[in-house]
Amino acid sequence: MDKILQTLLEKVADLHGVPEGAYNIRANGQMAGRNTTANIDIVTREDGKGIDVHVKPGTKKESVHIPVILSQTGLNETVCNDFFVGDDADVTIIAGCGIHNGGDMESRHDGIHRFFVGKNAKLKYVEKHYGDGDGKGERVMNPRTEITMDEGSYMEMESVQIKGVDSTKRDTVAHLAAGAKLVVQERLMTHGRQDAESRFDVCLDGENSSANIISRSVARDQSHQAFYSNLQGNSLCAGHTECDAIIMDEAKISSLPEITANHPDAALIHEAAIGKIAGDQIIKLMTLGLTEEEAEAQIVNGFLK
Amino acid sequence: MDKILQTLLEKVADLHGVPEGAYNIRANGQMAGRNTTANIDIVTREDGKGIDVHVKPGTKKESVHIPVILSQTGLNETVCNDFFVGDDADVTIIAGCGIHNGGDMESRHDGIHRFFVGKNAKLKYVEKHYGDGDGKGERVMNPRTEITMDEGSYMEMESVQIKGVDSTKRDTVAHLAAGAKLVVQERLMTHGRQDAESRFDVCLDGENSSANIISRSVARDQSHQAFYSNLQGNSLCAGHTECDAIIMDEAKISSLPEITANHPDAALIHEAAIGKIAGDQIIKLMTLGLTEEEAEAQIVNGFLK
Repeated sequence: MDKILQTLLEKVADLHGVPEGAYNIRANGQMAGRNTTANIDIVTREDGKGIDVHVKPGTKKESVHIPVILSQTGLNETVCNDFFVGDDADVTIIAGCGIHNGGDMESRHDGIHRFFVGKNAKLKYVEKHYGDGDGKGERVMNPRTEITMDEGSYMEMESVQIKGVDSTKRDTVAHLAAGAKLVVQERLMTHGRQDAESRFDVCLDGENSSANIISRSVARDQSHQAFYSNLQGNSLCAGHTECDAIIMDEAKISSLPEITANHPDAALIHEAAIGKIAGDQIIKLMTLGLTEEEAEAQIVNGFLK
Repeated sequence: MDKILQTLLEKVADLHGVPEGAYNIRANGQMAGRNTTANIDIVTREDGKGIDVHVKPGTKKESVHIPVILSQTGLNETVCNDFFVGDDADVTIIAGCGIHNGGDMESRHDGIHRFFVGKNAKLKYVEKHYGDGDGKGERVMNPRTEITMDEGSYMEMESVQIKGVDSTKRDTVAHLAAGAKLVVQERLMTHGRQDAESRFDVCLDGENSSANIISRSVARDQSHQAFYSNLQGNSLCAGHTECDAIIMDEAKISSLPEITANHPDAALIHEAAIGKIAGDQIIKLMTLGLTEEEAEAQIVNGFLK
């Protein structure tokens, strides 16, 4: 693996070499390494379009790394991965996609991830997106995440787009059975002429299911962001969406959150706010010796932390 | 005017007889009374489809009543009224629509109201909708309100659907110039198999324009409500939408509020909540001697006040 791919790997999966536990590294459309454990199996799908990850019931404190890195300009791929997390398991799955585009053609990775979270299982899923490279070619990532949560299961999804992705459409669909709980934390920053769209469809189907979706984003320069969510309460359930955005320069942000109560015992709340950094916050930091740019950067970093 | 029409008039315009000041009463598709004042003129439009109301610049503390009442089953009408409120005026316009349907055919009133609010003018606009009657025919009202606010103007819109409207689609569109301020208060209750849809499109075009939209609703029985709003910040501006709903019985409610910042100095906030009446609130009132139904009714009344 060359230096560029290694840098990407570090950015999207915090990996400085080969990870511990189970992993599958995909580099420029090819498998670049795989490891399985006694409890976690990774198999290439029969159609060759992705992998199936099987986590045995009761597996505790194990992790799976499945980074995807691209450094070849013009590469355009769609990958379908399925994750079967057995009953009572407690695992962390770290996905990430890094694209370095040094050429003039579009490089694109579309990932479809399906999660089947077993009864009373706990899953932490981390997804990081990163792009760099001096080429004129666009860096495009369109992740789709489909989540099916069985009774009493818990899933925490952390979705981060750090930098350098020119265009992204992020789609997340979830169905929750009785007692299941989903927590989503999305952090997004766009700059230049980037375009980002994020969509969440969460169905609270089972009794006592709950969801908490928190999106924080910063739009700079001439970038454009759109946030859509649809929280459906179909039983006694609790749902909360929060969407806070900082707007800077000539950016545009739109937020379109929907909550639908199809059941009288559904309790749903949504909050959204779009605004710029308060002037007095910047002035306060400037009196401490920071320049205006440094003050802004510090506030933005704190907001996205 | 017969007893039924008089009751409707009381419900939608709090009128026990002929109002003070300017008025235009429309009963069963015909003009049933009109009065103009030195400052407020009411003229039938040339196409006969409605009225034009002209308020002279500087007119202070005057009111215009324009109730519409229907007691004839099967009547289906569309009325277009324009309101020209002169610069620096300060007036109240009370519109309202009451339908008594004792027959088996649909009775329907669609009203299109356009408001042109002059520079630094103040307008309070009240709109009440009410339906009754034992017939199987539906009572349908679809009001559309188009608002154009000039610099420094202020408009307060109070929209109330009290009872008995089987189907309603309410559409409000507003454009605000510099320094203009719009405040909307919507209160809505649906029961039986009623269907209500409410939509607000507000463009904060001018510098220092602001809007505050507050919707409170209660959905009972098998009724269905949908709330849409789109708040667009196109300059230095402030916008706030709040949508609180109580869901009861087998009702369904959906809320779809959009905020879009097209300018870095736009500050936009949205809040929405759907839920049922908290059990402990009901128990508290029941310990004071109320039945469960009485306790519910009291909480609903307080919420919609």
